[in-house]
Amino acid sequence: MTSTVATDAPTADGDGGGSGHDAYRAPVDDVLAALDVAGLDDLLALPDFSHVERDAVALVLAEFGRLAAEVIAPTDRVGDRVGARFDRGTGRVTTPEAFHVAYRHYVDGGWGALPFPEDLGGGGFPSVVALALQELFASANLALSLNPVLTQGAIHALAQWGSPAQQAMYLPRLLTGAWSGTMNLTEPDAGSDLGEIRTLAEPDGDGTWRLTGTKIFITWGEHDLTDNVVHLVLARTPGAAAGTRGLSLFVVPKRLVTTEGVLGEANAVSCVHVERKLGIHGSPTCVMAFDGAVGELVGPLHGGMRAMFTMMNAARLSIGAQGPAVAERAFQHALAYAGERLQGRAAGVAPPARSPIVDHPDVRRMLLVMRTRAQAARSLLFLAATHVDRARHDPDPDRRERSQQLADLLTPVAKAWSTDSGLEAASLGVQVLGGAGYLEEAGMAQRLRDGRVAPIYEGTNGIQALDLVTRKLPRDGGRSVHELLADVWDFVARPVADDDPLAETLEVLASVLGVLEPTTEWVLARLATAPEDAVAGATAYLELLGTALGGWLLARRARLALDGDGLDAARAVAESNFFATEVLARATGLARPVTAGAARVAVLLEGGAA
Amino acid sequence: MTSTVATDAPTADGDGGGSGHDAYRAPVDDVLAALDVAGLDDLLALPDFSHVERDAVALVLAEFGRLAAEVIAPTDRVGDRVGARFDRGTGRVTTPEAFHVAYRHYVDGGWGALPFPEDLGGGGFPSVVALALQELFASANLALSLNPVLTQGAIHALAQWGSPAQQAMYLPRLLTGAWSGTMNLTEPDAGSDLGEIRTLAEPDGDGTWRLTGTKIFITWGEHDLTDNVVHLVLARTPGAAAGTRGLSLFVVPKRLVTTEGVLGEANAVSCVHVERKLGIHGSPTCVMAFDGAVGELVGPLHGGMRAMFTMMNAARLSIGAQGPAVAERAFQHALAYAGERLQGRAAGVAPPARSPIVDHPDVRRMLLVMRTRAQAARSLLFLAATHVDRARHDPDPDRRERSQQLADLLTPVAKAWSTDSGLEAASLGVQVLGGAGYLEEAGMAQRLRDGRVAPIYEGTNGIQALDLVTRKLPRDGGRSVHELLADVWDFVARPVADDDPLAETLEVLASVLGVLEPTTEWVLARLATAPEDAVAGATAYLELLGTALGGWLLARRARLALDGDGLDAARAVAESNFFATEVLARATGLARPVTAGAARVAVLLEGGAA
Repeated sequence: MTSTVATDAPTADGDGGGSGHDAYRAPVDDVLAALDVAGLDDLLALPDFSHVERDAVALVLAEFGRLAAEVIAPTDRVGDRVGARFDRGTGRVTTPEAFHVAYRHYVDGGWGALPFPEDLGGGGFPSVVALALQELFASANLALSLNPVLTQGAIHALAQWGSPAQQAMYLPRLLTGAWSGTMNLTEPDAGSDLGEIRTLAEPDGDGTWRLTGTKIFITWGEHDLTDNVVHLVLARTPGAAAGTRGLSLFVVPKRLVTTEGVLGEANAVSCVHVERKLGIHGSPTCVMAFDGAVGELVGPLHGGMRAMFTMMNAARLSIGAQGPAVAERAFQHALAYAGERLQGRAAGVAPPARSPIVDHPDVRRMLLVMRTRAQAARSLLFLAATHVDRARHDPDPDRRERSQQLADLLTPVAKAWSTDSGLEAASLGVQVLGGAGYLEEAGMAQRLRDGRVAPIYEGTNGIQALDLVTRKLPRDGGRSVHELLADVWDFVARPVADDDPLAETLEVLASVLGVLEPTTEWVLARLATAPEDAVAGATAYLELLGTALGGWLLARRARLALDGDGLDAARAVAESNFFATEVLARATGLARPVTAGAARVAVLLEGGAA
Repeated sequence: MTSTVATDAPTADGDGGGSGHDAYRAPVDDVLAALDVAGLDDLLALPDFSHVERDAVALVLAEFGRLAAEVIAPTDRVGDRVGARFDRGTGRVTTPEAFHVAYRHYVDGGWGALPFPEDLGGGGFPSVVALALQELFASANLALSLNPVLTQGAIHALAQWGSPAQQAMYLPRLLTGAWSGTMNLTEPDAGSDLGEIRTLAEPDGDGTWRLTGTKIFITWGEHDLTDNVVHLVLARTPGAAAGTRGLSLFVVPKRLVTTEGVLGEANAVSCVHVERKLGIHGSPTCVMAFDGAVGELVGPLHGGMRAMFTMMNAARLSIGAQGPAVAERAFQHALAYAGERLQGRAAGVAPPARSPIVDHPDVRRMLLVMRTRAQAARSLLFLAATHVDRARHDPDPDRRERSQQLADLLTPVAKAWSTDSGLEAASLGVQVLGGAGYLEEAGMAQRLRDGRVAPIYEGTNGIQALDLVTRKLPRDGGRSVHELLADVWDFVARPVADDDPLAETLEVLASVLGVLEPTTEWVLARLATAPEDAVAGATAYLELLGTALGGWLLARRARLALDGDGLDAARAVAESNFFATEVLARATGLARPVTAGAARVAVLLEGGAA
């Protein structure tokens, strides 16, 4: 018998398989080291976290790490191959059976409640610890991990803005993950442009609202993992102002709920299309139709943007965590392959012996870029998240304010720099595997396909750079960035012994600061006189700042390790010096891309091809 | 009726479609400008090309450009969606009907014969012109374009090494494309490591040989576009030396051919598997089984490597051409999208008006990186190919020798830098489209999936860097690179007027040369004393050299345009200055990555995840 099959187009047979090199182990020690560098000890010393010990954090990481490695990671391939399936007739989305099993473990473990206040039924842990778990989840299965990310965003919004009745209705189920949440922002003609939103919410007379409109790019907008889906929807009310000031936030459940909390009939909201994407095939990206769906106002009328930003800010760091997640998974896979694959001979190896490719300097270089970018990215994210926690929990209002400013400044940098790093690492992972990496069978191609989305969603990285340069940087005349740079200088300028093993790192870091400081002043000055010049260099500035901070954080990790807190000091030092000479040093070339001004992009482009 | 379909896994329904922004127009003027910069006029002044005028080249480009745009480009999506299909029972590979139509046009136009000598039935054009056509073909349909690339490699090998009988048998059909060719090098345990090849060729007593073994990653190894497939196969003969010195090259047709040239019975060679890949789904990547297949020796016994290098060197530039091909196609698509997609307001635009995203500086920056990398890459490739032509056709033996050296030096740089540029441009294309870019429907994702292969095959870009630094650079004590850098200095150091519109480019180029020159000397010195240090910086050195040459070639293009040869001088100048400030300037940060030495990669990596 013969059978003709498409050879390249992925089939939906869920072959699982893989090359055997793509098992995942949670990098618990590296994550803990990044938490330490971000200031975990100081954070846990705050009164609000008096019940949380560092050992408990380590235990949580180890335990969730086992779940991620043993239960969630094996579901990753089938999610890619089979993906979320859409039934056009019923509007239902079904996910692979393996997803149900993994998600049930997540719910049963109570992991979703970890970072929320104890009075809401949460674990009362800092959000930075939850962010660390999100990285592990995303490494194990990026597509599935998006579901809890969205749920946590919905919890944040309802916890801050919901009425007591709304909180009582939704928070217990969202905290466990029995129900999931979504963010409904984007519309066909309103991507980054929320002011163009047209979905209409009309009062129903009984205190509820009826929502009508279409939302696109709704992650996990419809699925079969939970009994209910809680949509948080930006919409415009009749007579409201144009633009974003006229938007309000509504909660719209997939299934209506009685006041006793019993699930009732279906609401008039449905999934009408699921997108076919480059990657994250297991995460249904839905077009949602609201057809007079019943919703309740969340927070003040016309206060939609502020409420939505509550969700978005948390989500930006969660999406940022996909950067180290992708980089780490790709690194582990590439390292396992490189240790076995024989090819050529490294220096000093005589024929007929052959060397595993991990012994070739250029392969080691690629692996080390992957690993150090993962560690720098998670350190940067954790630093931002630690300030988010301090902004909420520090008893001192001035320190709260300072941490809020730093969190605001660091969030776009952490989101963009980390996700760019994840993408670069995934691409390097394909390169390390060579021809094998280009075959879907090996599984590395999925890293690249999955990892490509993170620089796009939750605000493209270009939007992050714009936010950084035009909003976050100039606040208070640049006070936050000046304080941050002063911290870095303080680290660099400390007198060191001649035989300091970090001498090379410190030298490169100083030279990068020598570029970062004047370009920062240039950007601040131009914002006042010729803002388009600052905007034209925004992406390069973000890259410069993110790389400098990454180098600083890796160096601080090495310093901590040398001071003897139990880490592998030799590895931490070597990685700091490697990152400094390979990645950080390149940032010295960014002065001109930042400061070249807007005139250089004022080239005629309309011509298209000649 | 309801139907459950996989939503994300590509289906094989060949929806063609696309967003309407991915039409392709051949950038004939830009290609001609790159040919001019590479020295087309001087080349055509050689006696061997006395029958070729620049106008004829322009005509060929325009005519093939129309074929590429109107006939070939519309087959690109179906090739991705349906792909090459493998019948396990018969071992046959079938390609979409649209491929047959496009390929027939290519054969009927006689395009494949263009660069071969007239006495072989060729057009007698320089190979650099054929390379330009390959770029256009690859832009239009990368997967299909690989078929002629391999055929041209086979022609080169047979034209140089084949016996008169072999040439008479194969060349006429290969030149037209009535038959296609392949390169059979790689084996399961021998990727970049040809010395490990085990395929055995045993003498048959009648002058022919019998080949037995398995070859993998054989591009277009089996397909239905031509009546015959002519395999050129590296194999080991009984008793031959170990390693590459024991290899010989054989020609093994898919179907045996009588001395009268009539197709006879099937040879004992068959396709046993077709790989499922990230991209280029329309190009079957075959596992070929040789089971006592009849072959003839090509060239001297044990001369396989030299003969194979004849094919590989030509193929490296052809694969390099996929860099600008992918970048150009992605650029055109992104520009068309950016001109229509409304989002936010650019500086100076008042509400309620909205701006097409092409008006946002960061989007323009991305588009200009794509366009200038495409132009720099094609200029670099054409410079290398022009020296290939001069090495064959210059009447002066010294100049032939010098051009050969320069071609050898430039080929790895052009292959790696160009394909890295293509990949970066494809990824930027996805970023310009944002969320839409992540949907397969838009077609940009295919650019990224297709473009990801070029840095891998025909020698990974890491292998190219190794070849550059350890073989090409040190020849004659670095004479070729010194001469090349002297040419660049000569261009930079020419006295210019104060109001020279290229002043910014020249300033940046001079500063990059200030980095390139000492690092070149460092690499040459280390090769003698501590070669592992030079090897550890090879990729960064290739990036530095490639970027510097790209900046120089774009500047020369602008200078030519300013001198008034009919190009759009304003655009050429603006693009040169843009590339200098955005891309070239970054290369000043490469000194340390090149020279940091091997110690920094001697980090323990065995630990894997902590």
